[in-house]
Amino acid sequence: MKIEKVLIDGSWVESLGREAFQAVDPQTGRTLSEFYPVSPWSEVDRAVRAASAAAWRVRGWSGERFAAFLGTFAGRLEKRAEELLATAHAETALAVEPRLKSVELPRTANQLRQAAAAARDGSWVQATIDTKANIRSMYAPIGPVAVFGPNNFPFAFNGAAGGDFAAAVAAGNPVIAKGHTSHPGTSRLLAEEAHQASLETDLPAGFVQLIYRTSHADGERLVSHPLIGATGYTGSRQAGLRLKQAADRAGKPIYLELSSINPVFVLPGALDERLEDLAQEFATSCLMGTGQFCTNPGLLLLVGGETAEKFVAAVQQRFAQTPAGTLLGEGVLRNLVDSVKSLVASGARVVSGGHAQNGPAIRCENTLLRVDGDAFLAQAEALQAEAFGNESLFVIAKDAEQLLRIAATLEGNLTGCIYSHRGALDDALYDRLAPILRSRVGRLLNDKMPTGVAVSPAMNHGGPFPATGHPGFTAVGIPASLHRFAALECFDNVRANRLPPALRDANPTGKMWRLVDGTWTQG
Amino acid sequence: MKIEKVLIDGSWVESLGREAFQAVDPQTGRTLSEFYPVSPWSEVDRAVRAASAAAWRVRGWSGERFAAFLGTFAGRLEKRAEELLATAHAETALAVEPRLKSVELPRTANQLRQAAAAARDGSWVQATIDTKANIRSMYAPIGPVAVFGPNNFPFAFNGAAGGDFAAAVAAGNPVIAKGHTSHPGTSRLLAEEAHQASLETDLPAGFVQLIYRTSHADGERLVSHPLIGATGYTGSRQAGLRLKQAADRAGKPIYLELSSINPVFVLPGALDERLEDLAQEFATSCLMGTGQFCTNPGLLLLVGGETAEKFVAAVQQRFAQTPAGTLLGEGVLRNLVDSVKSLVASGARVVSGGHAQNGPAIRCENTLLRVDGDAFLAQAEALQAEAFGNESLFVIAKDAEQLLRIAATLEGNLTGCIYSHRGALDDALYDRLAPILRSRVGRLLNDKMPTGVAVSPAMNHGGPFPATGHPGFTAVGIPASLHRFAALECFDNVRANRLPPALRDANPTGKMWRLVDGTWTQG
Repeated sequence: MKIEKVLIDGSWVESLGREAFQAVDPQTGRTLSEFYPVSPWSEVDRAVRAASAAAWRVRGWSGERFAAFLGTFAGRLEKRAEELLATAHAETALAVEPRLKSVELPRTANQLRQAAAAARDGSWVQATIDTKANIRSMYAPIGPVAVFGPNNFPFAFNGAAGGDFAAAVAAGNPVIAKGHTSHPGTSRLLAEEAHQASLETDLPAGFVQLIYRTSHADGERLVSHPLIGATGYTGSRQAGLRLKQAADRAGKPIYLELSSINPVFVLPGALDERLEDLAQEFATSCLMGTGQFCTNPGLLLLVGGETAEKFVAAVQQRFAQTPAGTLLGEGVLRNLVDSVKSLVASGARVVSGGHAQNGPAIRCENTLLRVDGDAFLAQAEALQAEAFGNESLFVIAKDAEQLLRIAATLEGNLTGCIYSHRGALDDALYDRLAPILRSRVGRLLNDKMPTGVAVSPAMNHGGPFPATGHPGFTAVGIPASLHRFAALECFDNVRANRLPPALRDANPTGKMWRLVDGTWTQG
Repeated sequence: MKIEKVLIDGSWVESLGREAFQAVDPQTGRTLSEFYPVSPWSEVDRAVRAASAAAWRVRGWSGERFAAFLGTFAGRLEKRAEELLATAHAETALAVEPRLKSVELPRTANQLRQAAAAARDGSWVQATIDTKANIRSMYAPIGPVAVFGPNNFPFAFNGAAGGDFAAAVAAGNPVIAKGHTSHPGTSRLLAEEAHQASLETDLPAGFVQLIYRTSHADGERLVSHPLIGATGYTGSRQAGLRLKQAADRAGKPIYLELSSINPVFVLPGALDERLEDLAQEFATSCLMGTGQFCTNPGLLLLVGGETAEKFVAAVQQRFAQTPAGTLLGEGVLRNLVDSVKSLVASGARVVSGGHAQNGPAIRCENTLLRVDGDAFLAQAEALQAEAFGNESLFVIAKDAEQLLRIAATLEGNLTGCIYSHRGALDDALYDRLAPILRSRVGRLLNDKMPTGVAVSPAMNHGGPFPATGHPGFTAVGIPASLHRFAALECFDNVRANRLPPALRDANPTGKMWRLVDGTWTQG
């Protein structure tokens, strides 16, 4: 059998691995024909050494060099769109339209171009100059970055093209992409284009590399390798925590996006005011992409009563009317069904759905669960387990006080939303709820579902543990996301001609923002 | 016996602990008369709960409130200088002059005032506003901060008054100070003034607390407590790594300053040019404070030859002529003598010193070791073990190539220095050495010893593991050091009147620097 090659040290080469795997088309349940290798440690180690050599070669390069690569890569992706869309669709069952073609691929190219702009501009290094003491500091590349992409964004979070990739490269670091095993073909195509772009823009061999799969143990060795600078990981909590432990022990920064159920509070005034609209908005957000978003609203919290019951019924109706989407794979389906069972065992009740649908497509019924406030408080931890997919749990508090008590039990999440009356009817409750929720989420929203994650400089796609590994960093938003892959470098009394351009007296571009003697200036 | 009280939840109270300890005057070797308690877990837990309640109460307060406290505290320290100096001197043997009175206490007050200015100014939150998308983010308090102070800076790094304390408070967080057990009386006085300042400026009970000692296990529970926001630790690598493991497992940020030998490279041209000056500069830096600085130059690297031998002799002479200073305690002496033995066992040779001096003062001979390049490369890891105190190891490379190979074996350090010829004679070697050293240190110096750590906005008192726990953060330098104790908070579509002042359209002070639509502005 023919096994696809890995991209190591500037070449597509036969893997040294003896094991191989195949992807599955979730729409048909059929195994796709290509075989992809499981890389043994020797191969992973070789990739890290090549990345380290590449990091050494690009040391001190201007941001322009990385920008040129990122821009070229973005253009190449767009030119190969047709094949990318077909492959990603076959491997993930995500709709070509309205998702992959008009949303995710443009977003991916946009991220690469925003990262290019940040690299070119250079302000992200936050050059800080104390002219009197002649002490100067800036963010600089941290070293080779391993990027573990998730299953749910084959382009926009792919290890070989997504947000972490773009941020790591814009900060000047080589990337070792670990493609997600559910879409190896997509990862291969992306890495092919990245590789070609790196050749066109004269990046060294080893700057962009791709492996498809390793053992768990080798993944742990990768993130703790002495030559690794940092790791970006998006995926399951269980696998992420194992990598975190290994990286932490070695003193290697690791940025993890682990899990999030993204609580949505609908306050009584809002419910009275616009019940049908909210039911529609919620159902759309919850079922979009078959619920397979990091920011999918998996928990909705209400004060009980007649209106709340109407709302539940309105959402239930929409869940029933909406055909269940296809899930990303058998594992996702199994997890989802098991998670629903666990939630039920912890006190939740199925309002609708809960079962796998008959094939060939891998699908689960749109699933709505409910639990009352007392029962939630009795099992608050278990009832916050993520059920990744087209599912949501409604928590019906007996009154506003209980709603607040429930809020205080929430774990760290990426997002938290509060819908409130357009006038002032909910303001008193909002003012008590918002600080509680604020401290538990990275992004607080008003009157808006969490599923849109704008690539804005002000975005925080992060949040307190266990949503991520550190509440001070964001995985989306440029240039902030670059800081994850940077070290702070200080130059004390270093002679002027030996300073990096960003730290010399003269502004290197005439446009870079720098903090000079306490003043942000482009001068 | 009378046991000193702990400061918990706004009051000085009797500890619940059954164990007590005493400090020792290192100049006389005599045990000081006061007894200090070892706090049991119930007491530590109570402190964390009180801090959490205080964090809740100050949520949303303007920076002005924290600035008022920090400024008042600084003033109170200065008023109580005499007692502070006497106590710190008795507990640490650090000289009143020229160290404690004219350097460390003013520095401590200065740090508190710089932190106050940063809190008042508010620019440290890096408010980032995307007006079009109506997404806004800023750094915000992370929650109660535990600060473990080290033995070597009884004021400037004290858990109850030092740099971490100032940074955590300026960022709006309550602090639980864990005083170092070698100077409990100093910590008590500082905490008394902090407490009084907190009363004068209406901070809530539990905002500033002090415990003196816990078991290791309870220290680990403290840094991983669900209600803790983050931890700042400065101290030994061994104890620090245990805390790190506990905090990491709980997903709690911990910032550690662990150990550093601060390599100093003296290139051949510089040695030829100014041998005597460099010998003097090095000896002064190395023996200052009996070598007990985090940035003490513990490793000096040279290319061998006649001039190098002259340099060794010149330094040896100064080491011999300088009376050995008193060490901070018996434990420091024991460690130092043991570390010297270990270095010798790993191939180093004693040039001078190496033994404890006869009492009553706790002292070790000024100690100079040497090792040739081959021997260093054979035991590079063992020969980088920190020997905290008045000791330094000279590494004599056989040529420039070997010097570079040695540089490539260096662990993460806080600082790295290169002395080079004032003209261009060393430039070729500098250009090869600097990138290697750059990647291994937080602060790179030219022609300057590392022992001065200016409190500059551009300072990086940090560096790659194992010098610290994360290469992106600094413990000194305001406002950068505040970011360790902050979470990134994003507000998406949040109604204008519900936004924190820093994120509203109007600049809250008319002076705060904010990044609005890509432009840093005070407007």
